[in-house]
Amino acid sequence: MRIIGLDPGSRITGVGIIEGDVLVHAESVRLGGGPMPERLGMIFARVQELIEAFRPDIAAVETVFMSRNPQAAIKLGQARGAAVCAAVACGLEIHEYAPRAIKQAIVGRGGAAKEQVQHMTRILLKLAEAPAEDAADALAVALCHLHTAQTRARLPAGVVLR
Amino acid sequence: MRIIGLDPGSRITGVGIIEGDVLVHAESVRLGGGPMPERLGMIFARVQELIEAFRPDIAAVETVFMSRNPQAAIKLGQARGAAVCAAVACGLEIHEYAPRAIKQAIVGRGGAAKEQVQHMTRILLKLAEAPAEDAADALAVALCHLHTAQTRARLPAGVVLR
Repeated sequence: MRIIGLDPGSRITGVGIIEGDVLVHAESVRLGGGPMPERLGMIFARVQELIEAFRPDIAAVETVFMSRNPQAAIKLGQARGAAVCAAVACGLEIHEYAPRAIKQAIVGRGGAAKEQVQHMTRILLKLAEAPAEDAADALAVALCHLHTAQTRARLPAGVVLR
Repeated sequence: MRIIGLDPGSRITGVGIIEGDVLVHAESVRLGGGPMPERLGMIFARVQELIEAFRPDIAAVETVFMSRNPQAAIKLGQARGAAVCAAVACGLEIHEYAPRAIKQAIVGRGGAAKEQVQHMTRILLKLAEAPAEDAADALAVALCHLHTAQTRARLPAGVVLR
């Protein structure tokens, strides 16, 4: 199973693609300081390009991070909308994971620090060095989906994960 | 000039297309209560379909409405990201207008009520009845762009509107 993980942001959008627990591609898409529609267009175009180039089977994205700042929330929401649309437009199924569920799956603790996620992403994918922060977050959500799917596959029929 | 106005929302997205001050098409895209990625896909697909069907020259969208609720802001942001991406993917230039600028252009007062915007949209487009709320808001932002563009065209060279 080839998974594309997305970590959308309005300044940098992280993309991480894995095949099983092997890294296929990771990048931080830098969006510059232009008008928002231009940045959304960049997210959409680049995510679509990467999907066409690497042909993942499924997409995973973090559910919404609870900002206290509505201005930041709107920007983040727009970036997320652009990234999700690119995956939907390419016909991919999208799975959403809460930040705590991702940390739980990668580090074993829902309250883990960002650095621990980066560190464990490097360990799990057997990389020589830790990926950049945004790419690491994207890889983490992809790994979270992988682990969840593997766990589901091991469960007897009729048992539902919560 | 044919303009598509967009009023993105996570439950209903309004779309209004005008040619000069003549109505071409208006609709409220109802998104149902499914998962957010599905709704974003619906916004993206429908806006793209309407752009392909009616071939507007330019898109206009309201800038972000200042919600005090970050949860609502994230949803709204995602819907906006999907609508803007559809326009960008179709190669349209996007113009953004603040809610107050739209009310100012349509009703003459930045603090005008929603009903006044609906009413004036009907008058300006010479419609037999007022369009539904979401479609009216989309038509209002399209009309705001029309009026702004007309005003700009009338200005002597070198004068910049603020």
